[in-house]
Amino acid sequence: MDLERLLAVARGDQPADLLFVNGQVINTFTAEIEQTSVAIAEGRIAGLGDYHEADQIIDLQGRYLAPGLIDGHLHVESTYLTPEEYARAAVPRGVLGAIADPHEVANVRGIAGIQYMLEGARRVPMDLRFMASSCVPATHLETSGADLEAHEIQQVLGWEGVIGLAEMMNFPGVIYGDPSTLAKLEVAAGRVKDGHAPGVTGKQLNAYLCPLIGSDHETTAHDEGREKLRRGMRLMIREGSSEKNLAELLPLVNDGNYHRCLFVVDDRSALDLLNDGEVDAVVRKAITLGCDPLRALQMATLNTAVYFQLEGLGGIAPGYRANCFVFADLQNMHANEVYYGGKLVAQGGKALFQPSVRHTPQFLTTMNVRPYTREDLSLPATASPTFPVIEVVPHQILTRRLDEAPPVVDGAIVGDVSRDLLKLVVIERHKATGNIGKGLVRGFQLQRGALATTVAHDSHNIVVVGVDDRSIYAAARAVESTEGGLAVTDGDTVLGTLPLPVMGLMSLEPLESVAEELAKLD
Amino acid sequence: MDLERLLAVARGDQPADLLFVNGQVINTFTAEIEQTSVAIAEGRIAGLGDYHEADQIIDLQGRYLAPGLIDGHLHVESTYLTPEEYARAAVPRGVLGAIADPHEVANVRGIAGIQYMLEGARRVPMDLRFMASSCVPATHLETSGADLEAHEIQQVLGWEGVIGLAEMMNFPGVIYGDPSTLAKLEVAAGRVKDGHAPGVTGKQLNAYLCPLIGSDHETTAHDEGREKLRRGMRLMIREGSSEKNLAELLPLVNDGNYHRCLFVVDDRSALDLLNDGEVDAVVRKAITLGCDPLRALQMATLNTAVYFQLEGLGGIAPGYRANCFVFADLQNMHANEVYYGGKLVAQGGKALFQPSVRHTPQFLTTMNVRPYTREDLSLPATASPTFPVIEVVPHQILTRRLDEAPPVVDGAIVGDVSRDLLKLVVIERHKATGNIGKGLVRGFQLQRGALATTVAHDSHNIVVVGVDDRSIYAAARAVESTEGGLAVTDGDTVLGTLPLPVMGLMSLEPLESVAEELAKLD
Repeated sequence: MDLERLLAVARGDQPADLLFVNGQVINTFTAEIEQTSVAIAEGRIAGLGDYHEADQIIDLQGRYLAPGLIDGHLHVESTYLTPEEYARAAVPRGVLGAIADPHEVANVRGIAGIQYMLEGARRVPMDLRFMASSCVPATHLETSGADLEAHEIQQVLGWEGVIGLAEMMNFPGVIYGDPSTLAKLEVAAGRVKDGHAPGVTGKQLNAYLCPLIGSDHETTAHDEGREKLRRGMRLMIREGSSEKNLAELLPLVNDGNYHRCLFVVDDRSALDLLNDGEVDAVVRKAITLGCDPLRALQMATLNTAVYFQLEGLGGIAPGYRANCFVFADLQNMHANEVYYGGKLVAQGGKALFQPSVRHTPQFLTTMNVRPYTREDLSLPATASPTFPVIEVVPHQILTRRLDEAPPVVDGAIVGDVSRDLLKLVVIERHKATGNIGKGLVRGFQLQRGALATTVAHDSHNIVVVGVDDRSIYAAARAVESTEGGLAVTDGDTVLGTLPLPVMGLMSLEPLESVAEELAKLD
Repeated sequence: MDLERLLAVARGDQPADLLFVNGQVINTFTAEIEQTSVAIAEGRIAGLGDYHEADQIIDLQGRYLAPGLIDGHLHVESTYLTPEEYARAAVPRGVLGAIADPHEVANVRGIAGIQYMLEGARRVPMDLRFMASSCVPATHLETSGADLEAHEIQQVLGWEGVIGLAEMMNFPGVIYGDPSTLAKLEVAAGRVKDGHAPGVTGKQLNAYLCPLIGSDHETTAHDEGREKLRRGMRLMIREGSSEKNLAELLPLVNDGNYHRCLFVVDDRSALDLLNDGEVDAVVRKAITLGCDPLRALQMATLNTAVYFQLEGLGGIAPGYRANCFVFADLQNMHANEVYYGGKLVAQGGKALFQPSVRHTPQFLTTMNVRPYTREDLSLPATASPTFPVIEVVPHQILTRRLDEAPPVVDGAIVGDVSRDLLKLVVIERHKATGNIGKGLVRGFQLQRGALATTVAHDSHNIVVVGVDDRSIYAAARAVESTEGGLAVTDGDTVLGTLPLPVMGLMSLEPLESVAEELAKLD
């Protein structure tokens, strides 16, 4: 960036690179709309006001110009897309910044996985920044691909593009002072530290906050949100693919606290990104629910930039990055043209960039499964007539425990579709331990066949649910053969797959194909 | 700080060090008042809520508890007090944080002078942080004691307690891209950079902001303030000893922008500190002018902490520093008891601490004047019958130029009290250059005698105004003999002095004595 030239353009002594005229400029600092021109040079906003000369002049004809939206918290991996393809979904929506926790890749490939994400982020026209994942593995009850201890987190915190400590999920570890958890917080002293504290309130919440954890995106109830705001947390209001908290939490936002509130998506699928949007969808829904459009935009731009200390992002002001988007309807905001660093990067909902696919063998061959046969999936009957069953609760992350008497065939417990009892198998896939967990689950309502996935939070082993071992075996082998992904089988027949060869989490295909395949698989 | 113990207190498993009960707790995050207990341990807030056990329990009997106030911008030297004595004035007011620009000491003693201030700050119970002075010297038309170039600023920015770049006064240098000015901004990239841009608007303001200068405290007019807020600056509303901008700027503050506004004092004399207060006086006046008390408190606490990225300051929340004060009347807020890190440090307006005086020779012997005689102060008559006169404009920092025909006696220009024409002399005192500037001034209305000072912005040479050379010479010699300070003379008679031997700027005496001597001198 040539600051001297930027200054010359700002002074009006040299023509701008790009000049927006006749626009209504969204001012996120003051919650106002200004009728003014915006001059851009050197990838930055040079100035607002009385400018006339530029290499390119764009007449907005009364349309709006807003600063690029910033998603305060997401997991890119949850989209099944690489960072490059995620950006192709986000950018056309006007989303030009996002703070990602690379928790899933870190669980599979540790800090090398995080590097993969950082490298992808450098290839796209958006400010995709990362937090150092704090809870890898998330549990010691399962085998993960990697472990991140405090010294590795410290290393990651030193990397360009990493701005703080990612959601501290281990809230009991914080509250009860687990030394390795406190060590991770210690290396992040003075950096932004995101929280994750579903349902944590009262003295437990006080304790959780003592290390100055700054935010929470797991709030689902009004009173919980109010308490968290009062205790100094930034309230990240989440509206993801499955977790939808906006309608509950928006009524909390008022004149006194809105500057402490921001919007996030956490987990959104490629399909939802394509059809509904990224954090722009949250802004639209908030407006539909009665939020003032300017305030909704503040919560998706400036507030996020201020919390994460992102200098030069979150507003349209001199010196700020020329990240902005044009739209026509303030009540139903859809980005028409999107500019990153003053360059047109998306138009009419389509990305104008397409980074090449990265074929890096170390991230494409992460399936390390000890050989097994179909017989190894058998679940031997026990002395007890009953057996524990995991019951899925619709739209919840938590499950319930049931105890049922399952059918036993040839000394092995099997499923029973009439009672929606299905077999659930977890095959360790990182360290070839040969560990295979077997159990029963209720809630999938499959009538036949099996579903397999290597996107299996948080350790991402192979998880298969099915009505019979033949289908289960075939599904597991199918996702092994694609180096990870999703598969649907019926007996030996593979009905469909979505290969996710990038660490068993992400596709090598473009956004549009992934969305199409996902729809088919559904 | 023992985090494990803090957690135990927060959980309610161990008694707190200190517990406030029956208080009304000012919540600066949400602009609310909470009736709740506040538990303190390890110098931090452990939690708010249902706590009962503590080594010391204080029943607030319905009084208020607020987080320590933070002054967003001041020059400690302007109080004539050392940092230690400044703190003795500020802390009893509930002011437990301040961001100081050590511009005056830097002009006299460079980075060593800044170290002197940092060292003083470490000796007092308040969070007195510093910005690296950006404009030393402020002008090349006068000889200063030191020069700070970019590499020295970089060095200062690396010191603990230095949090950013101080007010960039050289706005023409920024706007027109002076390389040494840009170099100073460059070394502060990514750090908070304060501005100083009186009357700068439009394209000039846009240019000034291009290097991401973040604030302005020099705004005096409503429209100017509105424009600066719109362009992304934090608006520091100043209410100093002479510059009073609150009444003009407060009407600007609204629901959409208040989180971008903060209160500062900039320059306040020891007398005003003692009689009126520090930033607490600004809060009181804002409330008198109609500002909601909770909002006024946000502008003097949280907003300042957020702008300067002061982790754990600006609110009463778990993990935050236990810096707080108790007061009885929300409409007329006067601190009763003040706690810093959970320790009582002031009560009833009196500091409970008194650091020893630092006698450091290098800072107490800064007068380096080349010998001169009274005759050297003579101003030779010129060929022209008129001579330029500096006219002081009451309550303004700017002066006007006049041209008058002064009396000439024995070939020398002299003053004329009937026309309020006085002699003005500047004696260089840093490098013994022997430079003596001589001229005429109007506006002091002295009838006899002279006034001398070594507090002479920004280079702090000896400045003397007087009706005759005898008085002027005596006054200059008087401040030399005290190693700096103020003096009033009448002929050879010294009527009074305020010695300021610390770099010629600050007294070694306690606050109360300085205030008393100042009143006498006035």
